[in-house]
Amino acid sequence: MMNTFPRILELCELNGFLKPVIVNGIVSYFKYGPLGELLAQNIRNEWIYSNVINRDENVYLHYDAKSGIEPSKYSKEAFKTARTLNNGHLPFGLATIREGQKQPLVINNESSIKYFHPSMSNCLKYTAFTSTNQGQQFFYRWQHQRKIWWRKFSADPGRFSLSEIHSESSDLETTHIIANFPWGNETLETITNYGTSLYENLSTSEKTFFEARDGNKKTLPYVVESVCSEGTSALTFLSDAYNEPTVMGSSKKVLRLHRKLAPYKICFAAAPTSNAVKDEIRLLATFLNKGLRKAGISTLLPSTVLAKKALESQHALNDSLGIPFTIVLSQTTLENGILGIRSRETTLEEQSHVSKLVSYIELLMKNY
Amino acid sequence: MMNTFPRILELCELNGFLKPVIVNGIVSYFKYGPLGELLAQNIRNEWIYSNVINRDENVYLHYDAKSGIEPSKYSKEAFKTARTLNNGHLPFGLATIREGQKQPLVINNESSIKYFHPSMSNCLKYTAFTSTNQGQQFFYRWQHQRKIWWRKFSADPGRFSLSEIHSESSDLETTHIIANFPWGNETLETITNYGTSLYENLSTSEKTFFEARDGNKKTLPYVVESVCSEGTSALTFLSDAYNEPTVMGSSKKVLRLHRKLAPYKICFAAAPTSNAVKDEIRLLATFLNKGLRKAGISTLLPSTVLAKKALESQHALNDSLGIPFTIVLSQTTLENGILGIRSRETTLEEQSHVSKLVSYIELLMKNY
Repeated sequence: MMNTFPRILELCELNGFLKPVIVNGIVSYFKYGPLGELLAQNIRNEWIYSNVINRDENVYLHYDAKSGIEPSKYSKEAFKTARTLNNGHLPFGLATIREGQKQPLVINNESSIKYFHPSMSNCLKYTAFTSTNQGQQFFYRWQHQRKIWWRKFSADPGRFSLSEIHSESSDLETTHIIANFPWGNETLETITNYGTSLYENLSTSEKTFFEARDGNKKTLPYVVESVCSEGTSALTFLSDAYNEPTVMGSSKKVLRLHRKLAPYKICFAAAPTSNAVKDEIRLLATFLNKGLRKAGISTLLPSTVLAKKALESQHALNDSLGIPFTIVLSQTTLENGILGIRSRETTLEEQSHVSKLVSYIELLMKNY
Repeated sequence: MMNTFPRILELCELNGFLKPVIVNGIVSYFKYGPLGELLAQNIRNEWIYSNVINRDENVYLHYDAKSGIEPSKYSKEAFKTARTLNNGHLPFGLATIREGQKQPLVINNESSIKYFHPSMSNCLKYTAFTSTNQGQQFFYRWQHQRKIWWRKFSADPGRFSLSEIHSESSDLETTHIIANFPWGNETLETITNYGTSLYENLSTSEKTFFEARDGNKKTLPYVVESVCSEGTSALTFLSDAYNEPTVMGSSKKVLRLHRKLAPYKICFAAAPTSNAVKDEIRLLATFLNKGLRKAGISTLLPSTVLAKKALESQHALNDSLGIPFTIVLSQTTLENGILGIRSRETTLEEQSHVSKLVSYIELLMKNY
């Protein structure tokens, strides 16, 4: 168990997820293969859904290719635009998904390579500007919500926890979200309770610039910020999903990626059969695949090997790619339209009809 | 009409879409405000849907933070991973959505500032690897499909056209997608028919590296590539959407952004009313807004100004933000649950019930 991490990295590289690029003993960045880039895209979309779209207050994205990297130095411009869109009132939020992060979130003093903290990775950063009397409560609520976000996509939710709160000063508290892996803890996200300390050393005119309305009075916003990185998230969810179950005496590699994050949601499989049937099965797979893709479902169609290798080896490959569902076609499907939908999680197959496939899969993908 | 472009830029900056950063007379990059960053995110998602997910062949994303910028020098690694996932067979595609593009797509000899070609912008690049006998046909089909993509999101589809095909050599043809604006033509995308010319100067062993299976024989792939940039796309769709209709003698600014691209899909409005009713309307808006956001619909909730300004001025603001639908609440809504859904396109209001709002809006947003 202690040595799974090298095998995780090996699988990540072999299957086109990601590959850490190491320069002078430091992970400089991740190279993303086809599956990793789709995973990163899905992580960004889920982060946006949870941090920007599905919020009580309005949260405003922004992006400045040239902005600095300090966590809380929001460009005055982004703050001003957001406040205007919010009619001058608190609370509101700012978020960015592609500001370059050029330093590791946390520097440990250990000698091992910090795979989870590539020097360069897109920063997923959220900043809340709220009223002073709700700030402290928001800080506690936000920690909790962020922890739930990590757990929601996990194959082993208990792995994610919050660290103790560190008080650097009376007005500045930080807490971390931590994942517990067999090889130790990894720090994933930092949540900082700045309060109004960010504005303390500003001149009076600068202070006035940052004021916003709280009901009828003008006040300096209370600031709470959370920061994680896309690269850290991708490697975390891959490591979290990695499993080595023993089936019939032999060890397999399964990536139990959440279906919202899985790069490919659907693959096709069929047991080897005669050449004539094989061609018809491939045509049917192509047709079904077209319908799924039109509905926006990301699929992988192994058209040239379908019905060639043993069904078990096709499933084993799909499991190691983290694909949650495999459509199993056979000669019977050609006769009566009944196909199998094999779940990676249960390894069981349920039956459906070709005519209902797209709407059923859409339903499966919709819920968390 | 000729002078609309400065007013478009002004609106883009004022409303938090984007702002070109000009260095030495050259547009270096775009700063994205809240609406621009959501627009960019929507453009990337639609590009991925059309170029990666909803395709007949498998298309593989990849991303290397350090890769070069030459259009067709795919890293051997990405090619190899994609070919393996495709079981060694043609056809397949490679795509990237965030490779930095550090040079303008097209350099014109005019003296004016090239707003549509920021020096730095994410590149949206698609490369098809197909069999030699289908390559030429694919090139023609792909031009056509890309033109349709641009037209699909346009308020004035006839604006987009293909340029003549330029033959730089017998084996290298290029064509451009061009938008016709009142101030002239802008080049948006370049589609290149490389054929097998990319491999001509390679050594025999390198040629062997790039071979893939076409049926039972091994062959060098036929390459067709299309390149546009996120920045160019964002400014193009904003310029395309910009309208200045004259309503009741006064000129308005309306952004007719397609609902798939619009940063905010829904906003709320209510005519001024008594304080007690106003508070109830704001509570109802907050409740409805929560349901819509939970369903993943991006909304803007102007809770603190709702039922404060004249309805017309609320609509005018929403139109200038490109919001396709506004939920109009009134005292009647509080009594019988009937609300209005005002369309930006028709300026007409249709009626719906509060209990059906979320499912109806989901339906409106689903289709193109």
